[in-house]
Amino acid sequence: MITREECMVLDASDELAALRHEFTLDEHEIYLDGNSLGPLSKSVRLRVNEVLDDEWGRGLVRSWNDAGWMAAPTRLGDRIAPLIGARPGEVLVADTLTFLLAKLVGAALAQRPERHVVLTDVANFHSDIYIIRAVCARAGRPITVKTIDRNTLDSELNDDVALVELTQVDYRTGESLDMKGITAKVHDAGALMLWDFAHSAGAVPLDVTDADVDFAAGCTYKYLNSGPGGPGFLYIRESWQGILENPLPGWLGHARPFDFELDYQPAEGVQAFVTSSPSMIALAALDGALDVWDHVTMQQVRAKSLALTDLFIALVEERMPGLFDVVTPREHERRGSQVALRHSEGYGIIQALIDRGVVGDFRAPDICRFGFTPLYLRYVDVYDAVDRIAQVMASESFRDAKFAVRHAVT
Amino acid sequence: MITREECMVLDASDELAALRHEFTLDEHEIYLDGNSLGPLSKSVRLRVNEVLDDEWGRGLVRSWNDAGWMAAPTRLGDRIAPLIGARPGEVLVADTLTFLLAKLVGAALAQRPERHVVLTDVANFHSDIYIIRAVCARAGRPITVKTIDRNTLDSELNDDVALVELTQVDYRTGESLDMKGITAKVHDAGALMLWDFAHSAGAVPLDVTDADVDFAAGCTYKYLNSGPGGPGFLYIRESWQGILENPLPGWLGHARPFDFELDYQPAEGVQAFVTSSPSMIALAALDGALDVWDHVTMQQVRAKSLALTDLFIALVEERMPGLFDVVTPREHERRGSQVALRHSEGYGIIQALIDRGVVGDFRAPDICRFGFTPLYLRYVDVYDAVDRIAQVMASESFRDAKFAVRHAVT
Repeated sequence: MITREECMVLDASDELAALRHEFTLDEHEIYLDGNSLGPLSKSVRLRVNEVLDDEWGRGLVRSWNDAGWMAAPTRLGDRIAPLIGARPGEVLVADTLTFLLAKLVGAALAQRPERHVVLTDVANFHSDIYIIRAVCARAGRPITVKTIDRNTLDSELNDDVALVELTQVDYRTGESLDMKGITAKVHDAGALMLWDFAHSAGAVPLDVTDADVDFAAGCTYKYLNSGPGGPGFLYIRESWQGILENPLPGWLGHARPFDFELDYQPAEGVQAFVTSSPSMIALAALDGALDVWDHVTMQQVRAKSLALTDLFIALVEERMPGLFDVVTPREHERRGSQVALRHSEGYGIIQALIDRGVVGDFRAPDICRFGFTPLYLRYVDVYDAVDRIAQVMASESFRDAKFAVRHAVT
Repeated sequence: MITREECMVLDASDELAALRHEFTLDEHEIYLDGNSLGPLSKSVRLRVNEVLDDEWGRGLVRSWNDAGWMAAPTRLGDRIAPLIGARPGEVLVADTLTFLLAKLVGAALAQRPERHVVLTDVANFHSDIYIIRAVCARAGRPITVKTIDRNTLDSELNDDVALVELTQVDYRTGESLDMKGITAKVHDAGALMLWDFAHSAGAVPLDVTDADVDFAAGCTYKYLNSGPGGPGFLYIRESWQGILENPLPGWLGHARPFDFELDYQPAEGVQAFVTSSPSMIALAALDGALDVWDHVTMQQVRAKSLALTDLFIALVEERMPGLFDVVTPREHERRGSQVALRHSEGYGIIQALIDRGVVGDFRAPDICRFGFTPLYLRYVDVYDAVDRIAQVMASESFRDAKFAVRHAVT
């Protein structure tokens, strides 16, 4: 049996332990929902108020140049780049994930004009599927969007596939896909690869350069802790820049925005994919949130993430054998930074847990999701969370609940 | 001759005078660039920090429901609605102006499937033209975008025109267009009307209901003072809701976002035009910025705006007769809330003025723009600003400058 004392020993030797103090957390609560919305950090508060008081309040309109607001989308992109293995100049912060997907899908289709199929995952986050369909419906030629079982990708790839879009970590199951292997297969078929990093950025080590990824987009409000509705980011491999055309152009992506020219001429590099200015206050929050990453590597984060999720799974099985179906893969290379437990009473279980100070979330129809962010979670938090899950499951509400264990969706 | 004392008398009886104290302004500076970026107000600081500390910091993911984040785009839309004459449920806050134009142009084209022309103004802000062309290029049928002289609109309207998009107040000249008259003409031709309110919202009284406007979009960082890159807003007349389809759909515009359905079904009302969540921190800034409008009517603002711009024009002509070409119309009904002065040395003049604490801006090739926001500007500020312009024009740099007066673009 794993003990709470063993967890305390792990915390005592945890080289990331000090980072917890950067975040404003309720000490009575265990927050396992950073995969939905990361918490506030002190540097976010500081940086937002600096932009409010100094840059906007005092600098006013001059700050577009003097405080570097014009360059903020690419400057912040360069701060995210190392977290996904991108090079400087390949990442842009702007808009939201859905708009960035719209830009990249539209742009990618124009690069494969003789092809008529886009493949995505039937288990994808629904917003991805909606925007892919909407953009494909306006591609100027008939495009079929196929929502496939991702495990059948090999048999779906052929010379009519223009683009494949997949989310690298499944938002329900927490399964992490083989980015390099899949990208290579897609390229072998002559198609382009677009990855959604919503549940990957800041959660798992990524190397878009080594994997030869064409395009990617992600959000910053989960494991990057930029706050509710925080801006998105996109990655465009350097070799595509200057070729790929932004289908939603705006003046800030123009080569000479202040010449007010009637004809659009794209700026150089990834800047061409800026449409209009994102909120500088929202960007300030992201800027502050990224400070913590100056003190940690993705390899350190990954090692602790796997240790936390291993511990959680082990404790759940030890304390409540057979009670849940652990949907998240056991193999490390196939696991993101969350654990999904399936239970037919999942909704009620999550509500009862929140009442006891353990915040996870529910995803229909039967998934209890628990996110593990190594920047602020302790091993002892994992122990205590499982302890409270066990209390909930032993309570009158769930003691006799029927739970339907099905095959894991992996 | 108008005296500084007369201006002080006007300030003493100004019923809006107290509102100035809501803003954080440098008392040594006269800020005539609120038409580009409005200043910070105290309630913005308060509201942003409330969202940071209480709603995000303590409420965390629960605030999507508990703090009303899910409903924020329509709640804030309802705060803007009275400023443009819209009814509750017709305005939405989200994204940026350019994306909202993309949505509305795309959606409008689908409502006039047998027509092939979109008209816009050659003098329009260039971003509008770029996005209109980009959306029309992906309309699924050939669409010609004509960038016309807006004064020739009558002769361009015919039964092949699907949509007319115009900016209600010209960003360079400050001319205010006859929204009701133009909308009626466009409707007579069977076309749809989309107005850009970037320089109108909070600047001139608007009545979209009386003018029977179909669609409109605007930004909030100018006269509504929401901060750099603040969110946009859109208006969709109630009779279009449920008919008009969002061409850039996302999960938050779905009828049941948390059912995670594979097929998109639009939410009721204007909510269907939400794609993904805007930044709640950026929305908090707007929320705070709108507080000042609880204490003032657009009619009060308009009366003072006209008095300020009348005074500015009179002082410029009295102190520097013939030195500038006043491009902005003299007739009140054709004037926005800015004054544009043309001078061939405009760029240098604006730089010299900024050095002397008068902040205006320059728009190529030769326009000096001065914005007048009645919420925080005093009559004496106008007097002092013109005084400093006169000093600049009498200085060595400009004393002998040749200036080319041309015909006003009105």
